[in-house]
Amino acid sequence: MGDVSIDGERLWDGLMALGAIGDRGDGAMMRVTGTEADRRARDHVVDRFEAAGLAVRVDHVGNIYARRAGREAHPPVLTGSHLDTVPAGGKFDGAAGVLAALEVIEAWDDAGVETDRPVEVVAFTEEEGTRFGTGLLGSLVATGGLDVEAALALEDDGGQTLEAVLEEIGYLGGADPVLGAVAAYLELHVEQGPRLEASGNRVGVVEAITGLCQLSVTYSGEANHAGATSMAHRRDGFAGVAEAALAIEALARELAATTDAVATVGRVEVVPNAANVIPGEVRFTVDLRDTDEATRLALRDDALDAIRSIAEGRGLALDLRELLDVAATPMDAGLVDELAAACASLDIAHMRLPSGGGHDAMNLAAIAPAGMLFVPSADGVSHSPQEHTDRADLTAGTRVLERVLRRRARVAG
Amino acid sequence: MGDVSIDGERLWDGLMALGAIGDRGDGAMMRVTGTEADRRARDHVVDRFEAAGLAVRVDHVGNIYARRAGREAHPPVLTGSHLDTVPAGGKFDGAAGVLAALEVIEAWDDAGVETDRPVEVVAFTEEEGTRFGTGLLGSLVATGGLDVEAALALEDDGGQTLEAVLEEIGYLGGADPVLGAVAAYLELHVEQGPRLEASGNRVGVVEAITGLCQLSVTYSGEANHAGATSMAHRRDGFAGVAEAALAIEALARELAATTDAVATVGRVEVVPNAANVIPGEVRFTVDLRDTDEATRLALRDDALDAIRSIAEGRGLALDLRELLDVAATPMDAGLVDELAAACASLDIAHMRLPSGGGHDAMNLAAIAPAGMLFVPSADGVSHSPQEHTDRADLTAGTRVLERVLRRRARVAG
Repeated sequence: MGDVSIDGERLWDGLMALGAIGDRGDGAMMRVTGTEADRRARDHVVDRFEAAGLAVRVDHVGNIYARRAGREAHPPVLTGSHLDTVPAGGKFDGAAGVLAALEVIEAWDDAGVETDRPVEVVAFTEEEGTRFGTGLLGSLVATGGLDVEAALALEDDGGQTLEAVLEEIGYLGGADPVLGAVAAYLELHVEQGPRLEASGNRVGVVEAITGLCQLSVTYSGEANHAGATSMAHRRDGFAGVAEAALAIEALARELAATTDAVATVGRVEVVPNAANVIPGEVRFTVDLRDTDEATRLALRDDALDAIRSIAEGRGLALDLRELLDVAATPMDAGLVDELAAACASLDIAHMRLPSGGGHDAMNLAAIAPAGMLFVPSADGVSHSPQEHTDRADLTAGTRVLERVLRRRARVAG
Repeated sequence: MGDVSIDGERLWDGLMALGAIGDRGDGAMMRVTGTEADRRARDHVVDRFEAAGLAVRVDHVGNIYARRAGREAHPPVLTGSHLDTVPAGGKFDGAAGVLAALEVIEAWDDAGVETDRPVEVVAFTEEEGTRFGTGLLGSLVATGGLDVEAALALEDDGGQTLEAVLEEIGYLGGADPVLGAVAAYLELHVEQGPRLEASGNRVGVVEAITGLCQLSVTYSGEANHAGATSMAHRRDGFAGVAEAALAIEALARELAATTDAVATVGRVEVVPNAANVIPGEVRFTVDLRDTDEATRLALRDDALDAIRSIAEGRGLALDLRELLDVAATPMDAGLVDELAAACASLDIAHMRLPSGGGHDAMNLAAIAPAGMLFVPSADGVSHSPQEHTDRADLTAGTRVLERVLRRRARVAG
């Protein structure tokens, strides 16, 4: 090995060209599933796939696969990410992984590399969950986690189904979404956190993807006059939320001394939300994560206990819904070691780290050895027009991806 | 004294007739200043004033005065309240005080009572501050606290001035809004709190109207990925608000053991307000009140200290604005005693209490002896279609009002 050269400029130019599609005008990407910008981005990468001689297929939930034939009829190695963005997102999240995979193929073509196994570049549908409320949707269907009919029937806020919007943009494909055997899945992604940059490493090898529990909590007390209601007579919904948020923060901080635990109260809606009225009803979300499943479940249980006892202590009615409960997913140990070894042999500074965000690799891990590598996010920023990864880092990550893809595309024997 | 009979049925029927004006259809009153409903309510009471033989004048900010002549040309005794409501308010707040005052006049007419001093029934403009952002507006201008030009130039959210909307409804009157000498001001109002009902008393004699400080606070931290940002790397704006809300609640609870102190975080806006994003910026209001001015100022200073030190401790940028800072207003001691004595002689169960809400009597206290009496609010509810006061309680309160108005309308000599 060693004669394959990743063309960092080609990769970067491709990423900027893709990033011009859906740019709101101020650098903020609006490529939500099933929009015109999504269609244009899909058309753009399909054109590039076809120009590279890849066989493109689109499945019935809009996942796009571009296949480079192998020497033998073995299960393929899969690599890629997604093209959709959150509203006002950036150019790197998702797109970097799809175009890095394509760059690997083009570099192989330049160097005349053939592989034993087919290699497929994939762009999964609705990874962000922005429009239909379920993140990692395309990969979930592809790995048998959700029926295709159920996925197609999902509705956006305006009542449009996934089926209708995919048909509208011409990406309700004919291929069966459920994947057969996959030899391995590899995904390059931006870190979306500050650790790589802070440590000075160029590549992160993901050891595990965090498990996630999301709760929607409503505390109902009594809205009343802020002046005429004594402290003793209050059932203040917001005071309850304040107490819960601090209790949950304290739980996560304590665990975080030894684990990757994080807890966030990110969404808060106060009713009636007037300066001179005691909040009667407050809805809030609690997002709890850890890469260690036992810790995640303990954090969840402790948070639920705190939420319940605070409601009781303050005489608040409690409505509690679990929005998400996803187990932590370790990456394939062999791939973790291979990715780290590739970094070492390429002399690319790297570290092992967890992924705090969810990724399609979580779903792929259910059917195949799955691995992920991160490239640094400047200032740890993502889901923002300020999202940025240095070109040299992206090139370095793609070199590591290439090395391990080439190895996994061989058939031992 | 003693031959004057308050007609509780006439008063009640009048209140229900007025309450039909601006009823949204479900009992919720929409009588915001300068609306068609406001005009109809004003026309309705002016008709009643004129039917009672009162001389009506409308001043240049729309305050309505209805004068019953006295035997002598002395400064008048003033009594009344307001006709405007908050959006989706009730039938009693304000309207009860205007119609109770009119009932006193009608009862005097029935009994052939003459007074030394003129007595004027007043309905002040924009007490609620709903449309133009300044509560107690009409009485503020009447007592010299705000120039008439400045008041008329106030704009609503749509850019319409007070002057324009008063002209539109025909209540931009010609009379000078600044009051001359006033012998006394007396206002009957619903309590808007639960104390009277809980104590079983029918009438509350207000000893002081709470002072009020309202702050608008913005904590700015860093919006970031809820999964990828470790607990140690967060600057979570909402965690700061939670800590501030609990600190301020604790301060008020401690003071409330011996004072009327209350503190409320009533309005909270989280940006970006998504379950999986650490809140970057949170704006919230703090409402602090006490009837004792020294305690109110101490509470304000302690709350400001807490807000600042929490920002510092969490690395949050702080933007702090004082929306309101109104001193506590004691009611005239002589009137407090007279109102209590009248209750006792009429055998009406009463208590002395503070007013946690602001009232026009606060402004009148700057130019005349001012007194207030409360009638019970069912369940302590106000600013709501559920607002209710029992007819018998309203009648009892009006009997007390009548007794003290009659006494104050005499000229000592």
